[in-house]
Amino acid sequence: MKYIIGIDLGGTNLKLGLFDQKLKIKDRKVLSTRVFKAKDSLIKAIVGSVEDVLCRNNLKKKDILGIGLGLPGPIDFPRGVVHFFPNIPGWKNIPLKKILKARLAMEIFMDNDANLMSLAEQRLGAARNFRNVFCVTLGTGIGGGIILEGRLYRGSGFASGEIGHIPINESGPRCNCGGIACIESYIGNRRIMSAAAKIFGKKITLEQLSQLAKKKNRPACAIWSGAGKKLGIALTGVVNLLNPDCVVIGGGVANAGKALFESIKNTVKIRAMPVQAAQVKILKAKLGDDAGMIGAALLVKESAHY
Amino acid sequence: MKYIIGIDLGGTNLKLGLFDQKLKIKDRKVLSTRVFKAKDSLIKAIVGSVEDVLCRNNLKKKDILGIGLGLPGPIDFPRGVVHFFPNIPGWKNIPLKKILKARLAMEIFMDNDANLMSLAEQRLGAARNFRNVFCVTLGTGIGGGIILEGRLYRGSGFASGEIGHIPINESGPRCNCGGIACIESYIGNRRIMSAAAKIFGKKITLEQLSQLAKKKNRPACAIWSGAGKKLGIALTGVVNLLNPDCVVIGGGVANAGKALFESIKNTVKIRAMPVQAAQVKILKAKLGDDAGMIGAALLVKESAHY
Repeated sequence: MKYIIGIDLGGTNLKLGLFDQKLKIKDRKVLSTRVFKAKDSLIKAIVGSVEDVLCRNNLKKKDILGIGLGLPGPIDFPRGVVHFFPNIPGWKNIPLKKILKARLAMEIFMDNDANLMSLAEQRLGAARNFRNVFCVTLGTGIGGGIILEGRLYRGSGFASGEIGHIPINESGPRCNCGGIACIESYIGNRRIMSAAAKIFGKKITLEQLSQLAKKKNRPACAIWSGAGKKLGIALTGVVNLLNPDCVVIGGGVANAGKALFESIKNTVKIRAMPVQAAQVKILKAKLGDDAGMIGAALLVKESAHY
Repeated sequence: MKYIIGIDLGGTNLKLGLFDQKLKIKDRKVLSTRVFKAKDSLIKAIVGSVEDVLCRNNLKKKDILGIGLGLPGPIDFPRGVVHFFPNIPGWKNIPLKKILKARLAMEIFMDNDANLMSLAEQRLGAARNFRNVFCVTLGTGIGGGIILEGRLYRGSGFASGEIGHIPINESGPRCNCGGIACIESYIGNRRIMSAAAKIFGKKITLEQLSQLAKKKNRPACAIWSGAGKKLGIALTGVVNLLNPDCVVIGGGVANAGKALFESIKNTVKIRAMPVQAAQVKILKAKLGDDAGMIGAALLVKESAHY
């Protein structure tokens, strides 16, 4: 029996899971990634955590089918090259697969984190049994992943799924990506927090804002419902274009609850075309914080040559 | 050697082509469909044209691999059922495949016309050799077809590709589809003609408006360039989402020429994300009015069991 290692690397944490081939988690490890300022120290930390987990589970390299990594940026999937990480400086065109293979002498697979979250939710989570699935991750930015006919669709330059950069107005705020009036330029984390700070007259975290909304605090509900309407407009375009079975919404911000969800659902229901609107289910992600790790393990399971 | 019949049924014409298996056109026939008010008389006209073309080419039914039909509305592709035709009344949930099979005793395949135009352009036209292709047809409405990883992507309810119904503003005109601020509600044929009538003080056809633009008439160029900008904004969303190799633009309105094309290209170049914008080619369709027929023949060639 071989094992799989799934790693979810984010701007805040590195999460590592040791999986059996049924994708049950046997061991896990979490590191803060904030302390690793330089690229090389982050790579060392990845290598170190893998070795550590092998050691404490009495496993040898030959017991591992492969290591999967979900990474926070665009990845050249077959070559295993990191194009760049928007939120971690120092990474540009890094042949990470080659580097890790040389240091670990195990099979390495990697992909963008939103893609792997989508894979996990479609294979084992909220979208289980649906063939055409669009996943949205609401975090610092707004990411997305596309599963069509049961397969991950990556795009010609491995840059598909960017729902955060669908324009929802002809003119509007300039976005970080260089575009205009992208949905992320209205409801990215920072935008929501600054709107909240104005209304409440003090700094307020997204968690607090979500808690307030759950207690039916009106201004908090209004903020989430406004964000949901904007996201619903972008999703209307996606739903009319892709006619998916379902849209899965995950990521930290998705915890905002009913005010956000009802608003997304209503907007899509009202604005999308009748056939598409009747067909699409808007679901909350099921695998939570583990989705990235599970997706990374799935990537190994589905790509490795046994 | 077997032959294939490809039929493109539109609100104006029925075009039928007799193809050899290399997709060369051996014979063709065009009928006006406007005279066939009732569903049954249109079905009779389809059957009659097939029989006519067989007869005048001395072919028997067994010489035909199959008949492909491109139809102007959403089609349940595997079952061969017409959901409805937006521009031909009297068609609702019609099992056209079954009806034609009973009357013609040949293999019948059918799909939406925008899907088949896309298939034709990707296999034999402007997008030859590209794997991920988005096709737009600019006609009475704005349609689209999606080819991903070389395969036609139809969507869960066979209703994918509806770029005409991507919203480009949070609020705006009510669209025929029930949505709000869909791109089609700004630059559908009728909208462009009514804008032109206002500016020129008389009724003006789209062909005249295209001719004027080719002669560098300023107001005509401004109308096409404005339409191109709006379409470019909707395409920015598509390009960021699907990261395609190319976008192919066809249909009658696409003849408006440079003013329209340059404006689409510039808008996508300025507004789409760097990786996606650098990768995508915006191309004019190559197969013109024959695209639908060719796509219908391709559908037979690729689906028939030899």
